[in-house]
Amino acid sequence: MPKIVDHEQRKERIAEACWRVILKRGMKGATVRNIAKEAGLSPGSLRHYFSSQGDLYLYAMNLVKERVRKRMEKIAFSPLPVKEKMVRILSELLPLNTETHAEMEVWLHFIFHFYGKEGAVDGGVRSAIQAIMDGLETYRLLKEGIDKELETERLYALIDGLALHKLLEGGRLSDQKIIEILKSHIDLIVKDERDAGGAGGERIREEDR
Amino acid sequence: MPKIVDHEQRKERIAEACWRVILKRGMKGATVRNIAKEAGLSPGSLRHYFSSQGDLYLYAMNLVKERVRKRMEKIAFSPLPVKEKMVRILSELLPLNTETHAEMEVWLHFIFHFYGKEGAVDGGVRSAIQAIMDGLETYRLLKEGIDKELETERLYALIDGLALHKLLEGGRLSDQKIIEILKSHIDLIVKDERDAGGAGGERIREEDR
Repeated sequence: MPKIVDHEQRKERIAEACWRVILKRGMKGATVRNIAKEAGLSPGSLRHYFSSQGDLYLYAMNLVKERVRKRMEKIAFSPLPVKEKMVRILSELLPLNTETHAEMEVWLHFIFHFYGKEGAVDGGVRSAIQAIMDGLETYRLLKEGIDKELETERLYALIDGLALHKLLEGGRLSDQKIIEILKSHIDLIVKDERDAGGAGGERIREEDR
Repeated sequence: MPKIVDHEQRKERIAEACWRVILKRGMKGATVRNIAKEAGLSPGSLRHYFSSQGDLYLYAMNLVKERVRKRMEKIAFSPLPVKEKMVRILSELLPLNTETHAEMEVWLHFIFHFYGKEGAVDGGVRSAIQAIMDGLETYRLLKEGIDKELETERLYALIDGLALHKLLEGGRLSDQKIIEILKSHIDLIVKDERDAGGAGGERIREEDR
């Protein structure tokens, strides 16, 4: 067992080296040679962990997705009021701190790299937003008259549009403005918890006791 | 004078050849040699019109912007009801027909190509949306309590998010769904013309006569 853990840890460290190289030198600089050097390995021993550059890219992409997903999940299970929870969860999909900024920059490089080449790159953003909207529906937190399918698609476009603009025009678009937009958008689709009939998650249940 | 016109026409034809090459072969294939061949010219005579590949790219990008801008302007001056006008204007910024799809695909290639290289590529989408929001405010067509700055940013993110998703996941996201999202979003920020106190553009003024 320890060997497997070591193997996975080493793979993660190589993937992180891959991210750093992409951030510094773009996809063109993200060669096996450069990534091995960044990870402190020989190209030969890197090939022991990944059979091809494509394999490594795929692993590095999945690792970004996995980390974002875990952070979102952690927030989802926290006892925050629903609207605050939503702001925090959706913020994980936006380049609002050093970590998410780096993740999304790497991700954008991957999207550009794979654009037009093969099957679409799935960042899992849509399925994350779908899960949020499903959760809101289950707990009867969607406002009356909301078209869930339409609002899922709209929120998905809004999030990716904001992320893209922040990455490409970060100087103009402040983090504060993004949070303001998120909050106002959430207000449009999510009920206030006091109107939600006691189905609004941990906080309400605690207060009801 | 005719010579200048010919010169411009030739430049436009070369730019269009550049687009076609990008669509067929990506930015990597968009070499001076390939573009010249597509335009039916020798690489030498292409250099007579553009001193460098960068020059040609810049011209080709501006030509896309200019054409979209002209189509949007034409719709803006038409006597359509305001909400219909907005749907049509915003649709020009989305890959909903062969022409706009090709334009935006080329545009995305340009964004990818220039990403991280120099100053941000400005597609003019934000300034177009800013102009629309300014117009709505001037004619008192914004709903009460609307935060114009926030809504400009939100609409801008929504449009680019939808455009990106349509380009990357076109099979999933139908044109009809996009139009539905546009319409519902416009309903959120724009007054019905009958409530706008006669300031709702040509149609209302005609009816008032």
